Amino acid sequence: MSKVKIGAFSVSLDGFGAGPLQDLNNPLGVRGFELHTWFQRTTVFQKMHHLGEGSLGVDNDFAARSFDNVGAWILGRNMFGPVRGPWKDDSWKGWWGDEPPYHVPVFILTHHARAPLPMKGGTTFHFVVDGPESALRQAKDAAGGRDVRIGGGVSTIRQYLTGGHVDEMHLAFSPVVLGEGENLFADIHLPKLGFKPVQTTAGEEATHVIFKRT
Amino acid sequence: MSKVKIGAFSVSLDGFGAGPLQDLNNPLGVRGFELHTWFQRTTVFQKMHHLGEGSLGVDNDFAARSFDNVGAWILGRNMFGPVRGPWKDDSWKGWWGDEPPYHVPVFILTHHARAPLPMKGGTTFHFVVDGPESALRQAKDAAGGRDVRIGGGVSTIRQYLTGGHVDEMHLAFSPVVLGEGENLFADIHLPKLGFKPVQTTAGEEATHVIFKRT
Repeated sequence: MSKVKIGAFSVSLDGFGAGPLQDLNNPLGVRGFELHTWFQRTTVFQKMHHLGEGSLGVDNDFAARSFDNVGAWILGRNMFGPVRGPWKDDSWKGWWGDEPPYHVPVFILTHHARAPLPMKGGTTFHFVVDGPESALRQAKDAAGGRDVRIGGGVSTIRQYLTGGHVDEMHLAFSPVVLGEGENLFADIHLPKLGFKPVQTTAGEEATHVIFKRT
Repeated sequence: MSKVKIGAFSVSLDGFGAGPLQDLNNPLGVRGFELHTWFQRTTVFQKMHHLGEGSLGVDNDFAARSFDNVGAWILGRNMFGPVRGPWKDDSWKGWWGDEPPYHVPVFILTHHARAPLPMKGGTTFHFVVDGPESALRQAKDAAGGRDVRIGGGVSTIRQYLTGGHVDEMHLAFSPVVLGEGENLFADIHLPKLGFKPVQTTAGEEATHVIFKRT
């Protein structure tokens, strides 16, 4: 059955999914990139960005798994780019160059309308201005029976979690503490939302935990 | 050199070191006992409570390590017992029966004076009414060159962390989310306090992380 899932989402040991002070130079916030070391070393990441071979092993398996059967993505506006307010023009096309690593429809939550943006390799960015539930409906339709992946950032994930829309969540706990930034867990009561960790696996550079709704 | 350390302190994946609503029936708060499953299964725990053999392996090694070279303990009042306000009499002698598993001096932070309480097996409970720094000085003196272990609970640990008194911290992340309770990390900036995770090891029932000050 088609699922709504969070995959390979990296958090620090103290619960932060991004550092503070996001901007063009720090798209993940200050020190946020350290959360993703495990992913950047994988063959999945390296091949995605045409960088050659990377690591194989547990981290790579979890990275690969996060892309399995994904028919559509949902991203928050900040994960698409650092532009704030209305789109001035079409020059910003995401952080990922001409051929983004999605290869399926991607729905961007924003308050500012913009025409769909088809990219090389099958990715089309759709800009959704009428809220996360509308984005989810559109993503489910577009996914054609496959899964919808909520890509992030933290506030987007928190929105879908608290809305009760997520079926499965894979978090990668990186061996890092940030002390500040965007906290994934603050005021989110995962047990009340029905979530339980069902699998914990040590990777080479992160600890992978799968949460399911019971 | 003598260290001040936190050892084998269990936290949930969402950062809670105890559940909500501590009382006589729930000394660790609601669901708090689930944080300690890894420890309760170890041979270290089983022998400590004269229950026979337990598990050997990584979790047991980390449990054993937490007791190495400990010359004195510091505990918060709530970890010693559920009694609130002045001590009515000497009837409450801790959660651990006649022979507590410390076997060294234990300093209890409290606002209410009480005479030292010697127990079987070498444990003496000392009640400290003039604050955490005084307790630390007394514990260091009593430890005779060995380490001082800050046992808990969460607020005691937070106090010594933010006071800059802790040299090393071993947290055991249990595969549990609580959603509420006493959060270890909230508003504590471990990097600013100089802490960095230096070792992550998967145990059978918990993930062990050693933090050191750099």
